[in-house]
Amino acid sequence: MLEVGPASEAPGLRADAARNRARLLEAAARLITEHGVAGVTMEAVAAAANVGKGTVFRRFGDRTGLLMALLDHSARQLQADFLCGPPPLGPGSPPLERLRAFGVAVLYRTMEQLDLQLAAQPEPTRRFVHPASGSLRMHVTMLLRQIVPNADCDLLAHTLLASLDPALIHHLTRQCDMPMERLESGWLDLVARVTGTEPLR
Amino acid sequence: MLEVGPASEAPGLRADAARNRARLLEAAARLITEHGVAGVTMEAVAAAANVGKGTVFRRFGDRTGLLMALLDHSARQLQADFLCGPPPLGPGSPPLERLRAFGVAVLYRTMEQLDLQLAAQPEPTRRFVHPASGSLRMHVTMLLRQIVPNADCDLLAHTLLASLDPALIHHLTRQCDMPMERLESGWLDLVARVTGTEPLR
Repeated sequence: MLEVGPASEAPGLRADAARNRARLLEAAARLITEHGVAGVTMEAVAAAANVGKGTVFRRFGDRTGLLMALLDHSARQLQADFLCGPPPLGPGSPPLERLRAFGVAVLYRTMEQLDLQLAAQPEPTRRFVHPASGSLRMHVTMLLRQIVPNADCDLLAHTLLASLDPALIHHLTRQCDMPMERLESGWLDLVARVTGTEPLR
Repeated sequence: MLEVGPASEAPGLRADAARNRARLLEAAARLITEHGVAGVTMEAVAAAANVGKGTVFRRFGDRTGLLMALLDHSARQLQADFLCGPPPLGPGSPPLERLRAFGVAVLYRTMEQLDLQLAAQPEPTRRFVHPASGSLRMHVTMLLRQIVPNADCDLLAHTLLASLDPALIHHLTRQCDMPMERLESGWLDLVARVTGTEPLR
């Protein structure tokens, strides 16, 4: 995870510079999807976004800066999706449906950026104090309070999010060869059990 | 966690040497309980076990070797307790009671050695392939198969164990100031929800 909180994304950038930045990050995200993290070089991003290499260096400093900006961008995107995007992830759906959609969205986002998220994992004593993980936890806690108001929703939110830990997803998919469909069903089943609601079939 | 599997504890040691080793490890464990990890020095262990410092060095090599042996010893102890110790942790109690007792035992053991376990956490891609974590998971999966035979017990075992992750326990107790009683209730509540059984009051 990143060291930059959700509110700090380049607030002073002019509109065209911000668009430029977003375009570079989208190009980098496409490269990751197609070729993995190894495919993201400053040169490849410049070529994919059709700008000079110098522009990429000026914007992100180096490859690590670019990768961190990419994770940050994607964390904000997810946050925007669950805070104000369309249902079922965003507002408008019942909290149970939002919770189901949340886990599925996190699972697939994590799979897309697995190497990057693993490389960026902070040391154990800082894993849970990161702003991005705090924002996911607040959201899950808020949904749980609406579904199971009498439960210890703080602790349950931690447990639900622990089942979406990138290191665990890495283990299950790459070391145990579980297909994503099984992890997705596992999330829906876990939500049903934890909330005492009917499982989705 | 350690790199040494449960079956490899000094198999060729003569009985008196094994007793000697156990005595040193028990002295080290007492020092941790009383003074934290910082209180464990080769000198302090030698003094507490009433042997010469040379004996401690010969047995463990250095302080890291001693601390690793201590974690290994404690992991084996826990394993012996749940495989063949007295109920409710060991055989003889119904699987649901054993599962409840298991989490409580892991919680308190982790708290006793929190700094040590955090320092010994492997990098993210190796966190779940460690022999000690494999043995805990096999046990929880085996109990779940008896309680909820139709569930995806492998995935549920991962989720239950993720809620007992040392890094999470560290965060909840030291960064969120939650008392251990709350974590213990949280475990019992989680077991009830996941297994669809009545919560223990």
